[in-house]
Amino acid sequence: MSDIMKSLQINLPGREYEIHIQHGLLEKAGSYLRKISAGNKATIVTDSNVGPLYAGTVTESLKKEGFSVQICQVPAGEESKCQEQLFRLYDEMLDFGMTRSDLVVALGGGVVGDLTGYAAATLLRGIPFVQIPTTILSQVDSSVGGKVAIDLPKGKNLVGAFYQPKMVLIDPLCLKTLPDRNIADGMAEVIKYGAIGSAELFSFLEEIKSDEELFAKIDKIVYTCCDMKRKVVEEDELDTGGRMVLNFGHTFGHAIEKEYHYQTYTHGEAVAIGMVMACEYGENHGITEPGTGKRMEQLLQSFRLPTRVALSKESLMDAISVDKKGSGNEIHLILLTKIGEVKIIRTGKEDVLQ
Amino acid sequence: MSDIMKSLQINLPGREYEIHIQHGLLEKAGSYLRKISAGNKATIVTDSNVGPLYAGTVTESLKKEGFSVQICQVPAGEESKCQEQLFRLYDEMLDFGMTRSDLVVALGGGVVGDLTGYAAATLLRGIPFVQIPTTILSQVDSSVGGKVAIDLPKGKNLVGAFYQPKMVLIDPLCLKTLPDRNIADGMAEVIKYGAIGSAELFSFLEEIKSDEELFAKIDKIVYTCCDMKRKVVEEDELDTGGRMVLNFGHTFGHAIEKEYHYQTYTHGEAVAIGMVMACEYGENHGITEPGTGKRMEQLLQSFRLPTRVALSKESLMDAISVDKKGSGNEIHLILLTKIGEVKIIRTGKEDVLQ
Repeated sequence: MSDIMKSLQINLPGREYEIHIQHGLLEKAGSYLRKISAGNKATIVTDSNVGPLYAGTVTESLKKEGFSVQICQVPAGEESKCQEQLFRLYDEMLDFGMTRSDLVVALGGGVVGDLTGYAAATLLRGIPFVQIPTTILSQVDSSVGGKVAIDLPKGKNLVGAFYQPKMVLIDPLCLKTLPDRNIADGMAEVIKYGAIGSAELFSFLEEIKSDEELFAKIDKIVYTCCDMKRKVVEEDELDTGGRMVLNFGHTFGHAIEKEYHYQTYTHGEAVAIGMVMACEYGENHGITEPGTGKRMEQLLQSFRLPTRVALSKESLMDAISVDKKGSGNEIHLILLTKIGEVKIIRTGKEDVLQ
Repeated sequence: MSDIMKSLQINLPGREYEIHIQHGLLEKAGSYLRKISAGNKATIVTDSNVGPLYAGTVTESLKKEGFSVQICQVPAGEESKCQEQLFRLYDEMLDFGMTRSDLVVALGGGVVGDLTGYAAATLLRGIPFVQIPTTILSQVDSSVGGKVAIDLPKGKNLVGAFYQPKMVLIDPLCLKTLPDRNIADGMAEVIKYGAIGSAELFSFLEEIKSDEELFAKIDKIVYTCCDMKRKVVEEDELDTGGRMVLNFGHTFGHAIEKEYHYQTYTHGEAVAIGMVMACEYGENHGITEPGTGKRMEQLLQSFRLPTRVALSKESLMDAISVDKKGSGNEIHLILLTKIGEVKIIRTGKEDVLQ
């Protein structure tokens, strides 16, 4: 890793924002956030894993810039992306006296980012918010692009909004405290970026042989993924077509997560299995270059990711039926032609089940 | 009333939509809505007052155009703008298999429009929706402009979004079935439009001497108000300044509604009292032309609206503290200089309480 600041600008008309990537950025969060907020108050939403590690640092930094700070901590885990936690956040933020001039800070992984962003998007019809993602998954994917949501008992991310953050602050030092499984979880999405858009990134990942090597290269990896996400989001903010490529491995992945009640597999693990399924589906249908699935499987395994699972037809059917990408009886399958090149196929739901 | 179609276009870049005003439009709803939706399914959300009267007509009209139709009926009244009804709608729409290609139809007054619009804005991150307002209040105000919301126990409209409808269909014939009190409720907002932006409309209303005369002129009134709303919304879609003028009478009005637990006074009645309070506050502070409050009171009374109420300081303080227009310790008071001319004053919350 290095101490050099890397920055990106997301160019959405009227909703531009910067992503900054630098070691030790948490301690400087206040001065960065003061640039985009003249507010008096800041609510930091975090979870029971991340809060004890980093909420203090961010709070101090915000207080130095004159913010009054409230910390709302939710239990770690996907279960917190729910109705109950959402309405609890509304309540606590109103009790704290938050107005549309203040600032909501999401400090944590994808769950915290999604829940917090959705609460910020909807409370008082929108309070400015920023993302400080602390996992690989959220640094390379969910913190950028403005898709925020909660889950319903019927499925994931069923209630949500497109609501861009005002800034994203990425401190790769946070990744040092992540458990191994969480790192693997994030690497699945990193591998996805290589698969759908950069054979170079895919090869770069294939050369990594140890955790030390991964951490030495993580800045470059995070930057590369954010930059790819930036391009996709700028072209399709509202997810009407182009953004669909980011869902490579996700249709099958969502079905797997659901089959196991979001307990057995992490999002990244389910996507890993889903990507192998998508490669093999593509190879069987003559769309994907032969051997792609095998190469995908090997790379995933090198990051300790699962690649195979039994999946019932019913679960798959259920999952694709409520998939937001679905339009009537058609679904879109995101497949590869080869590593680094994606192709979207429209097909009937029944065809997928064969 | 006349049978001539009046139409308006709301020009918001990328979110343009048409408002059509015509007698008997309910029966033709399907063919209008087919122009803006290629969907297979339509969910009509209505309430226990409006559903039995009009849901059948709209359903038939939609079916003729090939839509499968689901009707979701909520209890009539402000209480339905709540968390429970919202999540019930999500559930029912998912059970019906709604996708982002389908259509949500709000058929009813402001409560139905706000709740339905918010559900449509957030389910699957946004399903297209249209407004078919059936009360004066919703026809002249809440159906246009994209402000949708639910209430929380802590206050009204605290959770919401800016989400424009794809079309607004106004059938003035619906007003024939409204109870007197509901008509008065709507006339308060009509009078507000005159007060803040059209001395001509205000005088026009002062000349109305009977319900018959009102109904004979209602098309013109609805059109005039929609056109005024159009201008305000086009200039300030996201309610960052200009749109604030629409809140004339509302800061005090919200306090009144809250003091009486949203039971005793309708929204329009509370706004009526609030407008008189705002006129008198303005006259006492040398901002509003003397006699304006008196003239306002007389016009409101001619439409059987209340103009006076006792209001506790605590209730007022509470209400203005969570007002979304509030920014820190300042609030904005919307006052008149004279009938037809509005002026916004920034002041401390404490000053208002004196």
